[in-house]
Amino acid sequence: MLLAYDGTDYCGWQIQRGTGVHENRRPSIEGTLTAVIQEMCGESVTLVASGRTDAGVHASGQVAHFSLEAKRFGKHFAEGLNSLLPPSIQVLDVRPVPNSFRAQRSVEKQYSYYFQQGPAPLPHLRTQTYWNRYDLNVEAMDGAIQSLLGEHDFLGFCAAGAQVSTTVRTIHEANVIRIPIPEPACLSLERFCLVRIRLRGTGFLKQMVRNIAGTLREIGEGRRPPEDIKAILDSKDRKNAGPTGSPEGLWLDRVFYGDDDDIAFLNQV
Amino acid sequence: MLLAYDGTDYCGWQIQRGTGVHENRRPSIEGTLTAVIQEMCGESVTLVASGRTDAGVHASGQVAHFSLEAKRFGKHFAEGLNSLLPPSIQVLDVRPVPNSFRAQRSVEKQYSYYFQQGPAPLPHLRTQTYWNRYDLNVEAMDGAIQSLLGEHDFLGFCAAGAQVSTTVRTIHEANVIRIPIPEPACLSLERFCLVRIRLRGTGFLKQMVRNIAGTLREIGEGRRPPEDIKAILDSKDRKNAGPTGSPEGLWLDRVFYGDDDDIAFLNQV
Repeated sequence: MLLAYDGTDYCGWQIQRGTGVHENRRPSIEGTLTAVIQEMCGESVTLVASGRTDAGVHASGQVAHFSLEAKRFGKHFAEGLNSLLPPSIQVLDVRPVPNSFRAQRSVEKQYSYYFQQGPAPLPHLRTQTYWNRYDLNVEAMDGAIQSLLGEHDFLGFCAAGAQVSTTVRTIHEANVIRIPIPEPACLSLERFCLVRIRLRGTGFLKQMVRNIAGTLREIGEGRRPPEDIKAILDSKDRKNAGPTGSPEGLWLDRVFYGDDDDIAFLNQV
Repeated sequence: MLLAYDGTDYCGWQIQRGTGVHENRRPSIEGTLTAVIQEMCGESVTLVASGRTDAGVHASGQVAHFSLEAKRFGKHFAEGLNSLLPPSIQVLDVRPVPNSFRAQRSVEKQYSYYFQQGPAPLPHLRTQTYWNRYDLNVEAMDGAIQSLLGEHDFLGFCAAGAQVSTTVRTIHEANVIRIPIPEPACLSLERFCLVRIRLRGTGFLKQMVRNIAGTLREIGEGRRPPEDIKAILDSKDRKNAGPTGSPEGLWLDRVFYGDDDDIAFLNQV
């Protein structure tokens, strides 16, 4: 299934021990979806996502798979699930896929990180972007991010505790652009804008995009030179990168899985 | 001052009797702002807005005036107020204006009403737009709204209880367009889109835009003919119009006040 969610009020994708039991813990996306599928189908399922998203991180095209005994799919299944789900999590599409399909085995993923820039944080974007008090030098940021294109060892941007066999990944798209404040707000003043970092590649390590965003923010503010991105890659030492970017600016845009007809609907985001 | 707010959690612009006293009443925009100005300046002020917005209605360019003994203005005043305000209400600019300025005496106002259209309501737009389950015929809606251009008696679209000397208003811009889902969501599928109604004119009656939106929605769904807009105007009878549109789709975009240099900052939205 293809999912969109507002991660603000969740502890992230993964079920956390104690979630839903202790009232002061936030629910997980996975736990909320699993409960709704069980309520609707009477079956306990295991959901597997393309990857976990952290607390507060959003998705407009997350993909997850699960096995169901009952034959339910299509428009009415999605509508039924959505009517039981909170408005902060919605199923955009759900369809049967071959047994061999694994959501975690994607070919590519795309993330965007949004800074909001201007004299005040705009209310309607407050949970969807990170407001930066200072203007960002977008040209310097875009120049710096080009060093990430191609195959590299991204250990220098990887959070501690990641359990992966290799920290080598390939980035196929990397850019930073300025975009006008999106509707529904009606603001045409140039001093209000969004700054978007976009990264598309074969895979991403734990907090990798947020660590890149936090470092690019320091470059955008002129607090470190654009050359630092390449230097951090070469050093393979997380201590050299900037602080981890705040989660509310991060969006999992899309997950790509090749051209098989059976899963083509996942590519239509 | 120039204001943006997310109206979701408020009872509207106006202070309601009991707001802030009874815990089950929602706060007002006016009351929240008044309390923060008092906290910062030590003065009790009376805020006057360009017009009241209903419960749940948003603004990206509301204008309000007030008198202050203390001389405070500019960037630092706005920053101070914003640091005390909730993130759902922010001051975009605040400056001294001539004593003759009256926020309610605007030359023009612009409103937009946003429908969200697609198989599921997108989480990040759930409080900023009204999700319509059925596809809307945008061409029929845009054709119908043209009847509103020019000077008309809008009594047929005015809610009961409005205390106004005349229900005649002049509309200078009226259109309905389809727009792609705005970022930060990354959805390029045509089955997901926004439908925006825009109205700009000399003034608007109580619930006028929402009554027009509710009627246009029925036209867009093919439940009534486009000619009904003109027929409702001619009838001057609110009973002939459709149901009042849900408040979360409505945005007060901008308020216009002529070309005086002293108030030029209000036109720079």
